[in-house]
Amino acid sequence: MVLSEFELIRLFSSESSLSRSDVVLGIGDDAALLSVPGGMELVVSMDTLVDGVHFPESTDPFSIGVKSLAVNLSDMAAMGAEPAWATLSLTLPEADSEWMQEFCRGLFSLANYFGVQLIGGDTTRGPLSVTVQMHGFVPAGQALRRNAARVGDLVYVTGTLGDAGLALRLLGNEQNDKDRNYLIDRLARPSPRIATGLMLRSAANAAIDISDGLLADLQHICQASGVGAAINVDALPLSTAFKSVITVCDVIEPFSFPLSAGDDYELCFTVSPENVPKLNQIDDVAMTCIGKIEDEPGLRCFIKGEKFMPNKKGFDHFSERACSDD
Amino acid sequence: MVLSEFELIRLFSSESSLSRSDVVLGIGDDAALLSVPGGMELVVSMDTLVDGVHFPESTDPFSIGVKSLAVNLSDMAAMGAEPAWATLSLTLPEADSEWMQEFCRGLFSLANYFGVQLIGGDTTRGPLSVTVQMHGFVPAGQALRRNAARVGDLVYVTGTLGDAGLALRLLGNEQNDKDRNYLIDRLARPSPRIATGLMLRSAANAAIDISDGLLADLQHICQASGVGAAINVDALPLSTAFKSVITVCDVIEPFSFPLSAGDDYELCFTVSPENVPKLNQIDDVAMTCIGKIEDEPGLRCFIKGEKFMPNKKGFDHFSERACSDD
Repeated sequence: MVLSEFELIRLFSSESSLSRSDVVLGIGDDAALLSVPGGMELVVSMDTLVDGVHFPESTDPFSIGVKSLAVNLSDMAAMGAEPAWATLSLTLPEADSEWMQEFCRGLFSLANYFGVQLIGGDTTRGPLSVTVQMHGFVPAGQALRRNAARVGDLVYVTGTLGDAGLALRLLGNEQNDKDRNYLIDRLARPSPRIATGLMLRSAANAAIDISDGLLADLQHICQASGVGAAINVDALPLSTAFKSVITVCDVIEPFSFPLSAGDDYELCFTVSPENVPKLNQIDDVAMTCIGKIEDEPGLRCFIKGEKFMPNKKGFDHFSERACSDD
Repeated sequence: MVLSEFELIRLFSSESSLSRSDVVLGIGDDAALLSVPGGMELVVSMDTLVDGVHFPESTDPFSIGVKSLAVNLSDMAAMGAEPAWATLSLTLPEADSEWMQEFCRGLFSLANYFGVQLIGGDTTRGPLSVTVQMHGFVPAGQALRRNAARVGDLVYVTGTLGDAGLALRLLGNEQNDKDRNYLIDRLARPSPRIATGLMLRSAANAAIDISDGLLADLQHICQASGVGAAINVDALPLSTAFKSVITVCDVIEPFSFPLSAGDDYELCFTVSPENVPKLNQIDDVAMTCIGKIEDEPGLRCFIKGEKFMPNKKGFDHFSERACSDD
């Protein structure tokens, strides 16, 4: 069924009753009009998901809706920002009413949960891709930046690593068991760590979200901060499902996997030792200390104290990309 | 030549020395940090251009760069907003250094001219498409909206109409004459009416930019304002090139053409009769009165006082679209 342009998003977005008081004018004019609260900086991120590159072609529209918002919410979390407004640019081969309904149901489930209002966007015909831009607020000067790691900081990650990357290996596998389903769910519907990001404003120095893999993203922190890091690979938090499935998967280098697989959308952050007790106030997600910031540039990995050279991979869309190349 | 991700845009953007004081943190972290001046509302628009849909596949990268920014600047103009920041999501089949350099040269020529800083974005691999989100400011309560047309208002347009639409008809035609080149230039590199939009804040009631064609866009104003309009088709401003080329083109209904062809990115606005003298202060573009707002809903067209029924076409990407179907 062919539907008409941005009207169809408006149609399905009517299931969202959300109407923020800082939205002066939402969807329906040449642009939206918005009011940023006094004392707040505006935080802006933008991410594009392309069919077959950022999600497998078999992905259901509900999950695409969720993920397109989740990856941007994850950027807000990494800045310590409170999300507020989103715009959506949706390019679709054809306007399929059922597809759109499921996509919107996914997108608005997450938007409503986090109090995010859709304020505008664009719908065009073409190969399937979704661009979301997210806007949030952070008190002026309090954002969590990449460049603020200091020598002696401890390096933490939230949740578990490698689940989404392992899920990609399982896609051809039709077996329906709870471990596989858990991992696929981690890939399709990441959990943005918004509440954690807000709490970390007063505890962490630097933060980033893990989209390209721990090594690549921690390296971003280190480069921006002019430092290096040591990582205890045996401390990496792994899910029960990951530990169970990795043994039966044809993974050449199991230890490298959670270091380099992307798409987990957990947070990686650094904390001064004196601020570690503040982490006790954060109880919505597990946090694991996996290493330490050092003076010497570069990343060094250790297993039981022995140096370990991981197989790096997949940091760049234009060289290789987990979803398309695995 | 294969280059790495958003780095290459950063590379080429380094030719832009623009560094706005309201950008706290630009490209290079999980999100940008921005400071909206007090008393200002934030104005946000987003437009996606897809290869073969919004620009012909033969379009040169410089023009794609210009146009992707121009269509969003045009939305700012239509709101009476001053543009400030842009984000860019670029999806490319391959990272071609020469293509990218020309694209950036086009995009930054316009960005620098209008004082717009690129604050972030995303680069992904996939079928060519460009999404730009523009952010601007307008003093609180002063934005030009679609819903503010009043019965008795005069309807104006800037510049000339139909040039871009006619250019699409000429694309197969390799003839190199000045009329053809003028029209192609109007299609490839529209002129956002920013200065006019700023001046119109104190003169106009409602405004919109003409992207889908005059009839479709004026109808948006009328529907949002709960009014109708009469249009004097013989008053439509036409360029010399348009008038010369339309006679040799196989256009079935020449009068309908400037009414319905899109992609002109001129402004259409309504003005109370007592505010018409204020338009004399605007001298950066020609403005032509083409009709009047009336109580009766719907649009009515006249040629020399006689009712005229235009051939409507091409308002919707999912039903038909000028660039792909003409």
